[in-house]
Amino acid sequence: MSTELSDAVGDLNIEQTNENGKCENEDDDIVDPWNVVSKSQEGIDYDKLIRRFGSSKIDQEFIARFEKVTGKKVHHFLRRGIFFSHRDVHTILTHYEQNKPFFLYTGRGPSSGSMHLGHLIPFIFAKWLQDIFDVPIVIQLTDDEKFLWKDIKLEEANRLAYENAKDIIACGFDVNKTFIFSNMDFMGQNPEFYRNILRIEKCVTFNQVKGIFGFGDSDVIGKISFPAIQAAPCLSSSFPFIFGKAKVPCLIPCAIDQDPYFRMTRDVAPRLGYSKPALLHSTFFPALQGAQTKMSASDNNTAIFLTDTPKQIKNKVNKHAFSGGQATVEEHREKGGNCDVDISYQYLTFFLEDDERLEQIKKDYTSGALLTGELKKILIETLQPIVKTHQENRAKITDEIVREYMTLRKLNFQC
Amino acid sequence: MSTELSDAVGDLNIEQTNENGKCENEDDDIVDPWNVVSKSQEGIDYDKLIRRFGSSKIDQEFIARFEKVTGKKVHHFLRRGIFFSHRDVHTILTHYEQNKPFFLYTGRGPSSGSMHLGHLIPFIFAKWLQDIFDVPIVIQLTDDEKFLWKDIKLEEANRLAYENAKDIIACGFDVNKTFIFSNMDFMGQNPEFYRNILRIEKCVTFNQVKGIFGFGDSDVIGKISFPAIQAAPCLSSSFPFIFGKAKVPCLIPCAIDQDPYFRMTRDVAPRLGYSKPALLHSTFFPALQGAQTKMSASDNNTAIFLTDTPKQIKNKVNKHAFSGGQATVEEHREKGGNCDVDISYQYLTFFLEDDERLEQIKKDYTSGALLTGELKKILIETLQPIVKTHQENRAKITDEIVREYMTLRKLNFQC
Repeated sequence: MSTELSDAVGDLNIEQTNENGKCENEDDDIVDPWNVVSKSQEGIDYDKLIRRFGSSKIDQEFIARFEKVTGKKVHHFLRRGIFFSHRDVHTILTHYEQNKPFFLYTGRGPSSGSMHLGHLIPFIFAKWLQDIFDVPIVIQLTDDEKFLWKDIKLEEANRLAYENAKDIIACGFDVNKTFIFSNMDFMGQNPEFYRNILRIEKCVTFNQVKGIFGFGDSDVIGKISFPAIQAAPCLSSSFPFIFGKAKVPCLIPCAIDQDPYFRMTRDVAPRLGYSKPALLHSTFFPALQGAQTKMSASDNNTAIFLTDTPKQIKNKVNKHAFSGGQATVEEHREKGGNCDVDISYQYLTFFLEDDERLEQIKKDYTSGALLTGELKKILIETLQPIVKTHQENRAKITDEIVREYMTLRKLNFQC
Repeated sequence: MSTELSDAVGDLNIEQTNENGKCENEDDDIVDPWNVVSKSQEGIDYDKLIRRFGSSKIDQEFIARFEKVTGKKVHHFLRRGIFFSHRDVHTILTHYEQNKPFFLYTGRGPSSGSMHLGHLIPFIFAKWLQDIFDVPIVIQLTDDEKFLWKDIKLEEANRLAYENAKDIIACGFDVNKTFIFSNMDFMGQNPEFYRNILRIEKCVTFNQVKGIFGFGDSDVIGKISFPAIQAAPCLSSSFPFIFGKAKVPCLIPCAIDQDPYFRMTRDVAPRLGYSKPALLHSTFFPALQGAQTKMSASDNNTAIFLTDTPKQIKNKVNKHAFSGGQATVEEHREKGGNCDVDISYQYLTFFLEDDERLEQIKKDYTSGALLTGELKKILIETLQPIVKTHQENRAKITDEIVREYMTLRKLNFQC
């Protein structure tokens, strides 16, 4: 076992001993692929998470190098700490400087037909990465995972994968550089995928997945072996129709709760002759009710869905968005609001691109010049056109277009 | 959990507590998919195994019904107790009486290019079953299992599957009713296979495979989920190109060490809307050195390979076949030999079809009229033409013919 996994497992073993991978230390936030909960109104302590997971912080130096190498201003998700942590991205940047190829990999667990705003974050960012680096991306829809974890029929999980593919495509991915796949179907289309899964499954013990994911003896065997399926796309040979036999390095933009899968993969990949996948980690998109939990599709009132009407968006924000403002107008004018816990402000950091305007809003809300109702109005007017545009783009995605993105084929890519 | 598995697991938990599924009771034989060892020279106590596994003994009544239903004399493997145990075969026979369809399923783990005589037993019997019932058979080559369990390259395990397919085809299976598949390749050719594996994986916990197979925390996750892959072919929907959407019952002829897989499957199948697979269990083909262990391809001196020359067969039998005879000719004439431990006699029960002649040999050897050298000569002269004929048949099996048997296609079958 390499040092990285030993350390991670050792670390996690100290913090996680119960079956659900919850932290033993009651003050710690809970962050794993199935649970994200913080006790603080300000949400997850991401600096602490970086230390716990052993990743690297995205700082000014990182951003400066990123801009130097790409020759472009970085996305506001990077400028504002929404993608806040990484693993080995410097290696990818060096690779890019040397005109060597790499590819992007991200994914989604299709547990619901209704995707919400938070689900868009990794795809908006992945699309931006695809544009600035001009590289291929593979997008895994883990319908098998959702079937194993949720009380959902297999056929329904598979159907949701194809529904969600439409929302993903609507983010604007280049069809000549994008391959989207449902695990249930891809497994039966490409023997190399299963071969790589087997290779990974032979490298990872139950003890390891117990330490990393908190699996227990009463978990079903499908869950226990699933991590190999999320790991396999990191190996370019899982996609011979795109990469041939070339060993192409992989960069994964994802929310930090998915890191355990790739910590495991980073241990395994070198043993199979591949470089460790690099990662860019995002924070979570908070629930309307506050940053203690992330936005969830299973609770209608915590989420703004991509199918919501302008009126629904307005009502949800006005009714549910947790406010950092004071109890009365007078008190607010006097003491000012708290942007650190205010959900409307938080959402603007994700969706309002104009840095100067955002800075002004923060200043005005903190001073009390801007009232909560006014802040909510700005958010509503920011979100309504974004969701409307998404709906218009999605409406154009026919089954034929989905088929195109999901067909095994050569991409516009030389390696 | 249904009663069957609860009982079986409960039972096994009492007897097996260590990680390799070895029996706690030191007097017990060890029988699991990876180990077959007896402390007795007469080999495994099969009656005890029937009680331990909770299967049914194949007795005269069973054989009488089998012959009545099929209108044919049963194979000498059944008459002589080589297939000695079953589960639910009466249901299959009733099904057959009612002109309802069923199918056969058996398999092989391709760990060696050199198959030996013992490996032929399930296939000789399965071919006979195919002939008398006129039903389709699916034959699984578990190259994935061998890769996971053995120190062998993935590509080599896959290559051996295709090599072994030639020996299997040489047994005379009807190409219009036989589908042979390598797991590594079939997984990538047919999404329904993975879908059924997922359904099974969702029904079985680590606790259950721990109880049934003796898996431990330090086993790799591929091993832990593998039982679902051996279980999936019991569900006819894994082969939509053969069975369409029909739920066709399954009969599995196999050595009894494979029973744990199907005990597990018999628990799961009804929960997925299928009938429990029926089973016909064979004894093990003993090693040349004696019945304490089964013949193994990994020890050259314990096995007669299907590639051995007539001279090699002669030498191996003369040199290694454990004898139940006495130390000197005089003593043998006086006391007689012991057929219960004599390997040459044991092998004749497998390969000498003539009941009367076998009975006479037993009588003569037991009385001392037949000497060990003479008995060995009869065995040599029985095996040499069988192996020669197999070699001639195998030589005719081209890669093209293998491809035909292994192509996903409709079989000559109505359901």
